[in-house]
Amino acid sequence: MFRLTVRDHIMIAHSFRGEVFGPAQRLHGATFVVDLELARGALDANGIVADIGLVSELLKAVLAPLNYRNLDELEEFRGQNTTTEVLARAIAQRVRARILEGALGEEAKGGVAAVKVTLGESHIARASYETVLQG
Amino acid sequence: MFRLTVRDHIMIAHSFRGEVFGPAQRLHGATFVVDLELARGALDANGIVADIGLVSELLKAVLAPLNYRNLDELEEFRGQNTTTEVLARAIAQRVRARILEGALGEEAKGGVAAVKVTLGESHIARASYETVLQG
Amino acid sequence: MFRLTVRDHIMIAHSFRGEVFGPAQRLHGATFVVDLELARGALDANGIVADIGLVSELLKAVLAPLNYRNLDELEEFRGQNTTTEVLARAIAQRVRARILEGALGEEAKGGVAAVKVTLGESHIARASYETVLQG
Amino acid sequence: MFRLTVRDHIMIAHSFRGEVFGPAQRLHGATFVVDLELARGALDANGIVADIGLVSELLKAVLAPLNYRNLDELEEFRGQNTTTEVLARAIAQRVRARILEGALGEEAKGGVAAVKVTLGESHIARASYETVLQG
Amino acid sequence: MFRLTVRDHIMIAHSFRGEVFGPAQRLHGATFVVDLELARGALDANGIVADIGLVSELLKAVLAPLNYRNLDELEEFRGQNTTTEVLARAIAQRVRARILEGALGEEAKGGVAAVKVTLGESHIARASYETVLQG
Amino acid sequence: MFRLTVRDHIMIAHSFRGEVFGPAQRLHGATFVVDLELARGALDANGIVADIGLVSELLKAVLAPLNYRNLDELEEFRGQNTTTEVLARAIAQRVRARILEGALGEEAKGGVAAVKVTLGESHIARASYETVLQG
Repeated sequence: MFRLTVRDHIMIAHSFRGEVFGPAQRLHGATFVVDLELARGALDANGIVADIGLVSELLKAVLAPLNYRNLDELEEFRGQNTTTEVLARAIAQRVRARILEGALGEEAKGGVAAVKVTLGESHIARASYETVLQG
Repeated sequence: MFRLTVRDHIMIAHSFRGEVFGPAQRLHGATFVVDLELARGALDANGIVADIGLVSELLKAVLAPLNYRNLDELEEFRGQNTTTEVLARAIAQRVRARILEGALGEEAKGGVAAVKVTLGESHIARASYETVLQG
Repeated sequence: MFRLTVRDHIMIAHSFRGEVFGPAQRLHGATFVVDLELARGALDANGIVADIGLVSELLKAVLAPLNYRNLDELEEFRGQNTTTEVLARAIAQRVRARILEGALGEEAKGGVAAVKVTLGESHIARASYETVLQG
Repeated sequence: MFRLTVRDHIMIAHSFRGEVFGPAQRLHGATFVVDLELARGALDANGIVADIGLVSELLKAVLAPLNYRNLDELEEFRGQNTTTEVLARAIAQRVRARILEGALGEEAKGGVAAVKVTLGESHIARASYETVLQG
Repeated sequence: MFRLTVRDHIMIAHSFRGEVFGPAQRLHGATFVVDLELARGALDANGIVADIGLVSELLKAVLAPLNYRNLDELEEFRGQNTTTEVLARAIAQRVRARILEGALGEEAKGGVAAVKVTLGESHIARASYETVLQG
Repeated sequence: MFRLTVRDHIMIAHSFRGEVFGPAQRLHGATFVVDLELARGALDANGIVADIGLVSELLKAVLAPLNYRNLDELEEFRGQNTTTEVLARAIAQRVRARILEGALGEEAKGGVAAVKVTLGESHIARASYETVLQG
């Protein structure tokens, strides 16, 4: 199995509901260093998992609606905590959807086997979500 | 699959038996930067893999009997080399046992699917052990 | 010259005023990985720059009023942008004041020559502020 | 499952064919930070995945023919792009072959279950290839 | 003193002349992770060392003529080895010149006190060059 | 000013005397990731601070008597705590002495202006010592 990983980041504000979150129930924020990993069983004709330029643009496009935002105000997260885990899933699912729409080219639609998104929230904590692709 | 990872560290002394270890047969020591990764298929009601505060406490509690110790003197490792691999397994198994005892709450007992412990021993070497949970 | 550095982090929300900040004028947030560096010309009687346990506690105490906060609401930053640079200075000045009050012990008051605080805001940007100590 | 990882690096020149590579079609170069990960289900009699000294030597030996080279001139890569993915596979396959030849000892031939090679090409991109061993 | 640091990278090919360089006399290459650090004694009216967006653009513009190039073919380095040290100086001097031309705004011309460029060539080696600014 | 930095590591056991050290009074150990930084005002004829191969060998030679040792048993540290700060100084002073003896060549004796040694003891703590060279 081959894997390609590219890195970007977002800076967001949010708050959590639930006693388990302690002081993080207050409005605070985070930098998330985002690693997007694509897996595929065989390389394409150019000898790559995907065009790294397109992958970087795809990641940036998916992150843009979240970046420099107060996530508490976004409609799509209404009623749920935007935890690191929830955000990793949301980003991974959007990347997956865009790949299936052809954002990485026709060939990649069937070639990419899985998408994993890891969000580093500090030097001591991170969370990830991995999902498979099915055309 | 979701994964949550938290980091801590221990500083220990030990020595190894076996020619394969060369100069590490002498009493020496190591800092192990410890990454504890929990995996689960679905998030809990709060949208998390587990309460990160409880996970950090759990890891600290499991590391405490090892930290600032000469592992050669610990009864539990008598007769075996406390290699990075052996320590990763010992820590992972203790974390697993505590989760099954309820250290991360009742819900997490059935929710956490796997535990992985990675020990970084330097900037150029690390070892890990992964185990599944079964109630 | 000797230097001792310890690391901690904070997670905050804030917004900036000024066109130069572009999208960061919106309410957003950041994780700041904080490195506190103390410099001194000679070690104390124990062979250290300072008690690393006390230094870690001091840093945590200085960071506590900022952590998990919306900095826009804090009286002390009213009328100024809480940029990475401004926060690095604020943290360094508070550390300096506490050292001069004896937080690291009487001996350290005269021993510590300089305080430097570096705030990593992402994997590609950081800022720092350094100040000297004068009793 | 146990995993052991050791790190080394190579510095190479190369160029790519294909419009997808943009400016990387020109002769340029890269430092690849190479992580070699070995997996096995059970430890050997010494309590290790493999002799870390032998693993490091094995990795260095496999990297030697690539290091400080213009990969465009190497016969073995004629007709294919030496992308990060292709190099990760080439290195992993050579490591695998040497393990099966006994480079890590007789016991490791059957013990090592999988080989993964990750090449970090910058602070924002990396690629890996993983392969299983079958005696 | 305040310092602001931003990170980018280049991927280049080159060769060295001189026996001291051993195998690096052959055509090879490197990824250089480039940290650009600006120092100034006081912040500007916005509470920053400089507009981080402009600093990132400035760094990218200075790196562009080097990126994805065989440095042996560049006129400007004719007759000298493009060692990590030499490149760090070349990049720092160009950054300095552009700041003095106003690339970071009029105010920054007099405000920025020093420029430091660090090139990380691997996980175990880096070099830097620091220069002061005089209007 | 130019600076060149190379990295290596040691793994040692030791214990401390003094209540300030708490549990570190027990025999324990550490991995120290060692960064050796050499500074000089002008490059040599090859365009380098020093031959990086010689610098790496010099560092390894200086670290060898400490590596895989119980520092409590070494004559040279009798009566003092082998804190991170004390070890950084000891290593820096030995590097300095060897440079003055010609370990980096005759030219480097007068060229190298300063030596700085940084010891990373974990992901959250490090200490350094810097000394100037005088022929």
